[in-house]
Amino acid sequence: MNPTDPEPRPRGSYAKGVARRQEILERAREVFAERGAKRTSLRAIASEVGVTHAALTHYFSSLDELLVAVYEESKQHDDHGPDGPESNTTPAEAMRVSAHENRAVPGLVQLYSTLVASALEDDNSAAHEWATTRFERLRDELTARVERLQASGVLRQDVEARLVAALVIAASDGLQTQWLLDPSVDHEAALAMLDRLLAGPNGS
Amino acid sequence: MNPTDPEPRPRGSYAKGVARRQEILERAREVFAERGAKRTSLRAIASEVGVTHAALTHYFSSLDELLVAVYEESKQHDDHGPDGPESNTTPAEAMRVSAHENRAVPGLVQLYSTLVASALEDDNSAAHEWATTRFERLRDELTARVERLQASGVLRQDVEARLVAALVIAASDGLQTQWLLDPSVDHEAALAMLDRLLAGPNGS
Repeated sequence: MNPTDPEPRPRGSYAKGVARRQEILERAREVFAERGAKRTSLRAIASEVGVTHAALTHYFSSLDELLVAVYEESKQHDDHGPDGPESNTTPAEAMRVSAHENRAVPGLVQLYSTLVASALEDDNSAAHEWATTRFERLRDELTARVERLQASGVLRQDVEARLVAALVIAASDGLQTQWLLDPSVDHEAALAMLDRLLAGPNGS
Repeated sequence: MNPTDPEPRPRGSYAKGVARRQEILERAREVFAERGAKRTSLRAIASEVGVTHAALTHYFSSLDELLVAVYEESKQHDDHGPDGPESNTTPAEAMRVSAHENRAVPGLVQLYSTLVASALEDDNSAAHEWATTRFERLRDELTARVERLQASGVLRQDVEARLVAALVIAASDGLQTQWLLDPSVDHEAALAMLDRLLAGPNGS
C-alpha cells in the first residue's frame, strides 16, 4: 500500500490494533511457555511482557481473557486431533493424539488445567465461558464420531454415544492430571485400554 | 482438671493451640461452604473468619495449607467410599458413591478442583504434596480392589489392574468437572457404563 493512500483512519487504527494485540499475545505466549501457568496478576504479566498495565488491559480486560487467548494461540491443532472430526480414528485414540501433541508445547497442559480451575471457581469468568463452550463442542463432535463408528461396527453398539463421548474426554483430562503429578501414570496405555473396552466386532 | 494442677506450660499451650486451630478451621469451613472456593488471600479469609492475619498464619502457613485442611475437614468419608477398601463394590461404583456424597457438601467439589489446580501450578505447594499423596493412595487402594474382583470374576481379567484404577479415578474426576460446568452431563450414568465395560463373567 502506498503510504500516501487516503486510508480512512478508523480502519488503519483497527488494523494497527489487531497487529498490536497479536504482538502482545505472542510475547505473552513466550512468557507463559517460560514461566509456566502459575497464578499471577495482569500487572505482573504486563511487566514481564514489557508493556504498560494500561496497554495490556486495553486488549485483554481480565487475566482469564488473556490466558484463554494464550491457550488458543499455543495450541497447534484442534481438540479433535490432527485427523479432523470426520476421521475413523476411535475417540480415545483421537484424545490420546491430541493430548500427546499438547504435551509437546511447554506449559500448555498446565495452562489448560489452570483455565478449567478458573472456570469452576467463577461462573462469570472468561474461562467459564471458554470451558463450557469447549466441552460442549468436544462432546458434540465425539458423539457424532462414536455414532458413526458404532454404525460401522468399529465400536460396540450397546453403549450410549453421548456417555461414551463424555467418558473419553473425562478419562483423558483426568489421566493427564494424574500424569502431571506422577509421570509413572501411563496416560496413553490407559486410553488405549479404554479403546479396547469400547471396541465392536470390527474394532481392533 | 483442677486449675491449680501444676500442668507443664508447654503441654497446656499445645492443647490450647490444637483447640484454637480446630476452632479456626471449623469457622473457615463454614466460610468456604458459604462463599465457595473462589481464589482469595489468607488476609481476606482471616477477616471473614474473624481472626487476625497473624493468628491465621500461626496455624496455617499458606493459603494452600488452609484449603487442604478445610477440604479434609469437610469430607464426610474416605475417598474409597463408605464401604471401606475391603468391600466388593466395583471401583467405578465406589468412586460414584464417594463423588455423590461429596456433592452433598456445599463447595466441596469446587474446593477439590481448586486444590488440584494449585497442585499442578506449583510443585512446592502444600496442595501438590496433598494431591500427589492422595492420588497415589487412591490408585493403590483401587488396584488392590480390582485385582481382588478380577480373581473372583466380577471384573474382566484381560485388563491391567493399575491402569483400570487410574482410568476409573480419572473418569470420575473428569466427569465431575464436566458436570460442574453443565449439569446435563450424567456423571453417574457414565461411571455405571464404565463398570459394565469392565465387568467379568460373574459381574453385573
